Amino acid sequence: MTAVAQPSPRIGIIGTGAIGGFYGLMLARAGFDVHFLLRSEYAAVSEHGLHLNSKVHGKLHLSAVQAYARAADMPACDWLLVGTKSTGNVDLAPTLVQVAAPDARIVLLQNGLDVEDSLREHLPPSLHLLGGLCYIGVHRSGPGVVEHQALGRVNLGYHSGGAADDEAGRKAIVEEGAALFHKAGIESQAMADVHQARWHKLVWNVPYNGLSVLLGTGTTALMADESSRELIQALMAEVVQGARACGHDIAASYADQMFAMTETMDDYLPSMYHDHVHKRPLELAAIYARPLAAAKAAGCELPRIQALYQALSFIDRHNR
Amino acid sequence: MTAVAQPSPRIGIIGTGAIGGFYGLMLARAGFDVHFLLRSEYAAVSEHGLHLNSKVHGKLHLSAVQAYARAADMPACDWLLVGTKSTGNVDLAPTLVQVAAPDARIVLLQNGLDVEDSLREHLPPSLHLLGGLCYIGVHRSGPGVVEHQALGRVNLGYHSGGAADDEAGRKAIVEEGAALFHKAGIESQAMADVHQARWHKLVWNVPYNGLSVLLGTGTTALMADESSRELIQALMAEVVQGARACGHDIAASYADQMFAMTETMDDYLPSMYHDHVHKRPLELAAIYARPLAAAKAAGCELPRIQALYQALSFIDRHNR
Repeated sequence: MTAVAQPSPRIGIIGTGAIGGFYGLMLARAGFDVHFLLRSEYAAVSEHGLHLNSKVHGKLHLSAVQAYARAADMPACDWLLVGTKSTGNVDLAPTLVQVAAPDARIVLLQNGLDVEDSLREHLPPSLHLLGGLCYIGVHRSGPGVVEHQALGRVNLGYHSGGAADDEAGRKAIVEEGAALFHKAGIESQAMADVHQARWHKLVWNVPYNGLSVLLGTGTTALMADESSRELIQALMAEVVQGARACGHDIAASYADQMFAMTETMDDYLPSMYHDHVHKRPLELAAIYARPLAAAKAAGCELPRIQALYQALSFIDRHNR
Repeated sequence: MTAVAQPSPRIGIIGTGAIGGFYGLMLARAGFDVHFLLRSEYAAVSEHGLHLNSKVHGKLHLSAVQAYARAADMPACDWLLVGTKSTGNVDLAPTLVQVAAPDARIVLLQNGLDVEDSLREHLPPSLHLLGGLCYIGVHRSGPGVVEHQALGRVNLGYHSGGAADDEAGRKAIVEEGAALFHKAGIESQAMADVHQARWHKLVWNVPYNGLSVLLGTGTTALMADESSRELIQALMAEVVQGARACGHDIAASYADQMFAMTETMDDYLPSMYHDHVHKRPLELAAIYARPLAAAKAAGCELPRIQALYQALSFIDRHNR
């Protein structure tokens, strides 16, 4: 028997910011056929390409970018990697439907809980929706310029779609996604449960995103002060507690591990810090409101997370 | 029988900031013999007197101020009203001992819990120590210039000293103090229990002082936003819970009353806001750490207050 050569999938990047830019560039350099949808940076990227300044991979440049200003101009894609903010998911469905091949896999490279829900009802049932949890330190420094500071792992989990009732099918799709990233030199793990994966990521996002805005600082200062360290640990413990109430067991040692990992990092300003500085809406629904509501529905109060959420809501409303 | 005319007591103001300046000026205008201890503002007040711009009493000026730059120059006082920050109480005892008449009553016009404790052990046992809880909106706008926005009530309670074991004696002293303020047109109530009085005051101070610093705003904005309103109410509920755990019953309606009262006020920037802006140490021990420790010792966790305290500690340490 000879293996049938599988055609290389076509990949669409929806939202070419720091996350979309990084993964799209890495996949394009690995030889994949990658198409980028842009808005405000379309002209800059068409002309100058995408630049990645990476502390891990060095300075990389993708000169000939297949860039589009309108979804209608894009070819149908087998994989769609969504790097836009979760705050815009409600309005994203028409774009995705336009670009998706009939059997497409859509991966939301976003933080927070249940970010898939506001999209799902507006997509054809057959389209596969996956969650992608990015463990990466990355930010935009200019039009088409991405700074990559550390890490890069993407953990994938199947959320919903045509393979919902087919365990083997779900597994195959998630592993196919992980294999794409592997070919681009990026760590990626197939997760059995996307909700559990999202709760895991919240252990980091809940304390560091919110406190970076509330206290106006990055991880180094937060990890250097006794009081903020205690607060971070108490917030992490509440996330673990909330996850357990919702039926997702997270080992207490996982929180310790995230805390210790952050201690080894160079100073990092989380995405919510950048959103706040640039007066963009904060991703409070995905990272705070939904986890709080899910925990509460399971009979579990998370008072510190709730207080943090209320303070951030005030800040967000006064920041537009 | 004819009443024996009681000699008018001599009053010393220790720390002539907004609080000390306001009450000292009002008492001096009522005819009391008031002596003011000042530090940085001594020259200005000696030359120009004390100015009060009050929305309640109008513009008042005390031209001939009995002002002192050194405690050693002051006459012995029967009443000492302390308007300095509680953060300096440890170093205050020698000054008080120097100025106090043998049977003096010392009133700490300060916020927070157990602010008397760090002083008590350094004072002669006979000296009477009282707590004074000021319900007033007042701040300094320049050397010797005090802006008075609203209210003015001082609630007094006996803390410790020569009358500790003499209930009638304690009562007489506290009522004597209240009478002084009454003569100056200021509301004042004799409280049976200074600790209970301090917990009552914390119902206001814990949310508004801390959130004014954390969110960089005054009461009007805090009362106009749904999320900060919820957070204020949740913090107030925790103070009531902590007080109860420590044996001081506060009616839940008292918190509602403080909340409603704040809603009727003009925009007010609490003292901690001014301390933060002027890069002075925040009164975190008195307003947060000690109530948290007292509640914890009684088996009661106050997670939102603790989170707020931890965030403020970070801010305070980065603000010097």
